[in-house]
Amino acid sequence: MVDTDHFLLTARYVVSMDEEGTLYSPGYVAIQGSRIKSLGLVDDAPDEGKRIDYGNAAIIPGLINSHTHAAMTLLRGVADDLALDDWLENHIWPLEAKFLSPEFVRAGTKLAAIEMLKGGTTLFADMYFFEDEVAAAAKDVGIRVLIGEGILAFPTVSAKEPGKVFDHIRNQAEKYRDDEFVRVHIAAHSTYATSEDQLGKCVGLSEELNLPIKIHCAESRKEVQESIEKHDRSQVAYLNDLGLLDTQIRLVHMVWPQDGDWDLLKRDNVSVVSCPQSNLKLGAGIPPIARYLDEGIRVSLGTDGAASNNNLDMWEEMRLAAFLVKGTSLDPTKLPARQALRMVTIDAARIWGMDEGLGSLEPGKKADMVVVDLNKPHTTPTYDIYSTLVYAASAADVSDVFVAGHRVVKEAKITTLDEESVLGEARDWAERIMQERGNV
Amino acid sequence: MVDTDHFLLTARYVVSMDEEGTLYSPGYVAIQGSRIKSLGLVDDAPDEGKRIDYGNAAIIPGLINSHTHAAMTLLRGVADDLALDDWLENHIWPLEAKFLSPEFVRAGTKLAAIEMLKGGTTLFADMYFFEDEVAAAAKDVGIRVLIGEGILAFPTVSAKEPGKVFDHIRNQAEKYRDDEFVRVHIAAHSTYATSEDQLGKCVGLSEELNLPIKIHCAESRKEVQESIEKHDRSQVAYLNDLGLLDTQIRLVHMVWPQDGDWDLLKRDNVSVVSCPQSNLKLGAGIPPIARYLDEGIRVSLGTDGAASNNNLDMWEEMRLAAFLVKGTSLDPTKLPARQALRMVTIDAARIWGMDEGLGSLEPGKKADMVVVDLNKPHTTPTYDIYSTLVYAASAADVSDVFVAGHRVVKEAKITTLDEESVLGEARDWAERIMQERGNV
Repeated sequence: MVDTDHFLLTARYVVSMDEEGTLYSPGYVAIQGSRIKSLGLVDDAPDEGKRIDYGNAAIIPGLINSHTHAAMTLLRGVADDLALDDWLENHIWPLEAKFLSPEFVRAGTKLAAIEMLKGGTTLFADMYFFEDEVAAAAKDVGIRVLIGEGILAFPTVSAKEPGKVFDHIRNQAEKYRDDEFVRVHIAAHSTYATSEDQLGKCVGLSEELNLPIKIHCAESRKEVQESIEKHDRSQVAYLNDLGLLDTQIRLVHMVWPQDGDWDLLKRDNVSVVSCPQSNLKLGAGIPPIARYLDEGIRVSLGTDGAASNNNLDMWEEMRLAAFLVKGTSLDPTKLPARQALRMVTIDAARIWGMDEGLGSLEPGKKADMVVVDLNKPHTTPTYDIYSTLVYAASAADVSDVFVAGHRVVKEAKITTLDEESVLGEARDWAERIMQERGNV
Repeated sequence: MVDTDHFLLTARYVVSMDEEGTLYSPGYVAIQGSRIKSLGLVDDAPDEGKRIDYGNAAIIPGLINSHTHAAMTLLRGVADDLALDDWLENHIWPLEAKFLSPEFVRAGTKLAAIEMLKGGTTLFADMYFFEDEVAAAAKDVGIRVLIGEGILAFPTVSAKEPGKVFDHIRNQAEKYRDDEFVRVHIAAHSTYATSEDQLGKCVGLSEELNLPIKIHCAESRKEVQESIEKHDRSQVAYLNDLGLLDTQIRLVHMVWPQDGDWDLLKRDNVSVVSCPQSNLKLGAGIPPIARYLDEGIRVSLGTDGAASNNNLDMWEEMRLAAFLVKGTSLDPTKLPARQALRMVTIDAARIWGMDEGLGSLEPGKKADMVVVDLNKPHTTPTYDIYSTLVYAASAADVSDVFVAGHRVVKEAKITTLDEESVLGEARDWAERIMQERGNV
């Protein structure tokens, strides 16, 4: 049963993540319908709504996963510790060619959505295939999604004719125009797997429908080198020449920015989505997040797909981002805890143009919020709530989650559907995949 | 109530971590008293002992935290995002001067021991003050400990006369000679805070009592530079000249090995204890674990104290070590999952000279083992158990823990003492500390 009542939540900390960084301790949040009606100190709480006293806990905005391929949970750990080409060409792509289907995407995305929601992620930006299935799975589970139908130069399982994908995206934009949970963005795969013609069309579509564009860029040194060989330019310069930097574009990965790229990124206020765990695990490199921040370039974070991470845990991404910034710059004062938390809440909402309704707890904003239980040894004592959240807490400390005022996680259990049946379905897929690989 | 019966445990995976990497699936482990009697495939299980069927779970050896300052949990997050000198001189040291006492150490270590045990750590190597209290706290909670009374050139709260610390260590070695849970090592603080005379005495004591030595070394660039200025040598060369490299010495941190250090480390087979999360968070740098492994230097991992991490989670250390090795070398095949798990189990036991009884599941070894529940979204599906453990699982997935055959964690709850009272005591300390700082 999903509670959709009006709520009055109280807790030791209400972490608003508003512009001033207002902290209410002890604090309350009043929810009316899908939105936050008011918040403040407990002493000022109105006497209305279904009251839940969380006690020694923190209420924070829902976390935002700015890049994933959700359905790839079904391939989690199927082929690890391999060189990137080997991994893709001999394992991931053959398995996708064999198994990818609407049913695969629906099952894998449900699993991903449950994992994310239980860990406090309330919105994810996806890039994969059969994205209507992604939308349906997200709505089944009760998480927000930015769907992104992968745009590739060759036929894919969900777009047999590469040209057709744009009609598909146009239809999706229409279909989900007023949807509470689903938004659409334009997910160009990369400069090497998306054609020049397609990239040009992305610009037109973005302007026509006012949609953000996302593209993998400069993930590995090799692809940067190949761009220079083929186009005589870095990928960023190539995208600039095609008119993409001047759109609402977000560049995913950006482990290897080239010298000339910095001015272009700054000139057009281009945002970066960094996926540090994936970058390290695949041996792509260490993303220069410290320098992005120094240069004033906005950064949000993503988990990437579970086949390259291998979980969808935004707490780990946030912590690693903070650690890498400090460790690479040799400066522990950089990316302090509150700023790290901003990267996965309000800053991420801003990057996706959704900060009017999401990313912080403020009156009138959507009631997307996460309750973090602090009654754990590793979160005791708490001197500074931002330190506790960023450096000590984990996804498993999330006890309750609200999305649009719905209590979708209650006492660490999904309320929207039967988790065990989703896990069982995922195991069935894994069984078939292992049989195919002759591993059983 | 602590179960101390004879057990027969079964699970989908029994991960032995023996030399051959034997995996029993589905497997069993039979425990008799404090030791493992046998293990193997479920079909070969004897019909004896109290049977517990863990189902979709993995039974693995207890994890080993090779370096921490356990009692510093009471200072967790008290001062973050500060420059190292500022952090130590203006925050940590003044607070320690004010609050350090046997009671502080007992309370903080109990909190740390609960956190570690619930997360699957069954042995930790400590370095702090009042280490008899550390031993007592560890025994209260039911975790193994290598105590290490800090050796410093100036008076400390537990050793008013710097010379007396050696008598103290000698007494401890005698006192815990036959203790099941407590072992002793020689914990020299560093080349800059321990005197030359004391370092010389460490050599003699190590030889006399056959004890390992541990010392912080090359954590920051600054301390390396200061050693070169003061001693005209790197810290490693300085330790070599004092005869320490030829003992059972383990160097903690080693973020900044100098050119000449490599040959010395290899010549004397010196082991390194890396604390990657602490190194990054404090802005010390990125430890060159990849090169240590390439050079054949043994590496185990530690969390460091909770004031600089901010938790005591060996899963995070293991994962970060694997990620840093791959990310810095640009080679995802390096430090594959099974080898990463070795670093915190059998390799760590070997580094501490305790592999005869600990570090792997083998007949006759101590029954120190951890049950990891795999019925979670983020561990579903599992294709390769090592991948799941190293790249997807977390401390919160630990359901049961056995130490010396005692079931000290049962269904994610400590069985040995009342957790809530330990957490309450820690909050009381925090209250006093915050008052002192004028933060309330």
